[in-house]
Amino acid sequence: MKVLVIGGRGVIGSAVVALLSAQHQVLVGGRNGGDVQVDMTDPASIEAMYQAHPDLDVVVVTAGHVPFKPLQQLSEADWQGGLDHKLMGQVRLVQIGARHLKPGAVFVLTSGLLEREHISGGSCASLVNGALSAFVRSAAQELWGQARVNLVSPGPVAGDERGAEAFAGFMPISSEQIAQNYLRALSQPLTGKVLEVFAEVTR
Amino acid sequence: MKVLVIGGRGVIGSAVVALLSAQHQVLVGGRNGGDVQVDMTDPASIEAMYQAHPDLDVVVVTAGHVPFKPLQQLSEADWQGGLDHKLMGQVRLVQIGARHLKPGAVFVLTSGLLEREHISGGSCASLVNGALSAFVRSAAQELWGQARVNLVSPGPVAGDERGAEAFAGFMPISSEQIAQNYLRALSQPLTGKVLEVFAEVTR
Repeated sequence: MKVLVIGGRGVIGSAVVALLSAQHQVLVGGRNGGDVQVDMTDPASIEAMYQAHPDLDVVVVTAGHVPFKPLQQLSEADWQGGLDHKLMGQVRLVQIGARHLKPGAVFVLTSGLLEREHISGGSCASLVNGALSAFVRSAAQELWGQARVNLVSPGPVAGDERGAEAFAGFMPISSEQIAQNYLRALSQPLTGKVLEVFAEVTR
Repeated sequence: MKVLVIGGRGVIGSAVVALLSAQHQVLVGGRNGGDVQVDMTDPASIEAMYQAHPDLDVVVVTAGHVPFKPLQQLSEADWQGGLDHKLMGQVRLVQIGARHLKPGAVFVLTSGLLEREHISGGSCASLVNGALSAFVRSAAQELWGQARVNLVSPGPVAGDERGAEAFAGFMPISSEQIAQNYLRALSQPLTGKVLEVFAEVTR
């Protein structure tokens, strides 16, 4: 299959690329560099990308920025940035992609454990992740028979020191193990499914 | 207590106003008319409203528009409209309100069953409701000791014919019964709680 991984240079994305490259043709997408250039915040850029690559079978998105700040420090611009990139960026990739790709195309998006568990400074991330989860379930129903849409919700990644203190109490999981869930999401007959890949140490 | 009900002229809001008026001083808020004018899409309007009414104990929001259209007919403007009104409108009322009101203030927001169950044309509503659910849980943690934040998630309202066919299979619930959940959300020692008020007939 021909697979595009948007964000394929990141911690999780590069593990997904490494895993899928064994069996599939994998293209790396991003705003700059990589095999395919696309700006998730720009519908015209997404349209052009799909027009240039109408033969994609799978689109994996492991890109998406949200601001981390205490609630009372989040400005209107901070909220809009998170909504426009990680949330609407992924929504656009599904909505526009479903118009361009062949029936049976698969989308695998990325949210995160902050939908379920909450940390100081994480309210925009929580909001965006909760939105993605409900969107994926809803879009999967509307696109039934046309495209599959699944979501991977990872927790902290082993070896990634960013935010380690904020995620105290959660078991870091290797990027290789997280990548297995993207493989599952695209290869199993699932749609509208949220694959949660995190564990509290105390469970 | 002094309670502001934004959207207090609507189907659910008017039932909330009727219920709470028996024991509390209730003000009705909205973009036009009512006791208090406020535009949820405008941070400056919300600031001005709280500056004029710093003695509110409870803010209930039963207002919030989202577009209902098949996924592929939702334009960028449709998405932005839903995000800006029902989602960010309620987020702003909490974030700005928590700066202005006395410690112990209570916010009760409104989402809807489409977070959990999905209908054709409801993907923006699902996304917004999922976002609100995760936001309320997260904001409740960040505002602990300062303000309580809860959410009521109603299904179809008995007697409200709008969308009745789309909600086939769900038991309509009276607006009076739904209003009881707003009373519970503000009067019980709850925060970060999502009160789901819907039932599938077959359960």
